[in-house]
Amino acid sequence: MKLYNFSLAPNGLRVLAFLKEKKIKLDTHEVNVRDGEQFKEPFKSMNSFNCIPFLELDDGTIITESVSICRYLEEEYYPNPPLFGNSPKKRAQIDMWNRRLELDCLTPLGHALRNKISFFADRVLAGTRNNIKQSNDIVERGIEMSNLLFDRIEPHLEKNKFICGEEFSVADITGHSIFISFERLKFEVPSKFKNVIKWKSRLYEKDCFKNE
Amino acid sequence: MKLYNFSLAPNGLRVLAFLKEKKIKLDTHEVNVRDGEQFKEPFKSMNSFNCIPFLELDDGTIITESVSICRYLEEEYYPNPPLFGNSPKKRAQIDMWNRRLELDCLTPLGHALRNKISFFADRVLAGTRNNIKQSNDIVERGIEMSNLLFDRIEPHLEKNKFICGEEFSVADITGHSIFISFERLKFEVPSKFKNVIKWKSRLYEKDCFKNE
Repeated sequence: MKLYNFSLAPNGLRVLAFLKEKKIKLDTHEVNVRDGEQFKEPFKSMNSFNCIPFLELDDGTIITESVSICRYLEEEYYPNPPLFGNSPKKRAQIDMWNRRLELDCLTPLGHALRNKISFFADRVLAGTRNNIKQSNDIVERGIEMSNLLFDRIEPHLEKNKFICGEEFSVADITGHSIFISFERLKFEVPSKFKNVIKWKSRLYEKDCFKNE
Repeated sequence: MKLYNFSLAPNGLRVLAFLKEKKIKLDTHEVNVRDGEQFKEPFKSMNSFNCIPFLELDDGTIITESVSICRYLEEEYYPNPPLFGNSPKKRAQIDMWNRRLELDCLTPLGHALRNKISFFADRVLAGTRNNIKQSNDIVERGIEMSNLLFDRIEPHLEKNKFICGEEFSVADITGHSIFISFERLKFEVPSKFKNVIKWKSRLYEKDCFKNE
């Protein structure tokens, strides 16, 4: 089993945080996606979506998508600590929170990044090089969607230590990526979201998000 | 256990197709989200994201997010036929395909719909009523992202009956929603994507997508 990753990319960081929290050591190869190594062989044939991270199983199967990789590792090899939940109900709740954070905030922020920062001008869509133009509307929409999400989770975080209760989960790893995206976009979490800011501080204290 | 749904909404349809494929009958209440019933009690307190579908468990727990609801039903009560996979590897592959289709196509098309159709002018973000302006850039981006996805899956569908191999899965339900979104947006799948169009026909033949 071998992980292909680029540690500086937001989704690369998510998988790394998951591995660190579970104390998993995986054989890992860094693919320099900034320089387009993912478009060259052998990587191109391994993942036609030209993105990282992806996991190569011993039988040659390729699993892409950070959350699917983490889900597989937890289910097949590393159950503890359970970051996806240890019952169908808890798994549904964590999955729900992870999706809310991804679909309503992290993904729009990912699009905001690629539509704002000049480095991404020829790569507005992940895993491509083309002439699709950066759009300020998409940057603005990322801010609007983040504010809506924060507004919705602010009361929920009044009585929850982490996004899905007392236990840290994969949804909190997604939450951490939201704040990292904010840093890269030079956005500030509005000060009225006091519980969101407390949650952010709690996440930043976790060892799994610290550089060694 | 009770499902709160609106059968005409794309995510409402996804859960309905899942239930039909598995022959599950659930106690269901239709919430008229067009008229804003989700902003009124008791629905408002049940789901602060003001969206459908959501599932109320017997202990009062609310699970939102169509995929999380389906995942829970399969895992806790209705394993057959397995639409999320019956091994960790298969589950990872189906999850990967479902995410690719959702993140790279269905979600951008959902945004395209809300930014194009005049009915959504005061509700550009799901579960809201506000003044956020519709953006043509976001409509265009939906088309660009769909074309990129089709380009990537066209060779894969040459040798796969469904998106994750020989067996129909929850990822195909997401695929069906992509084509329904195309219809609503009056977009056409470009004729060069012959395998994508064959896959679409195969999906449209399935009973779970037919109106009774």
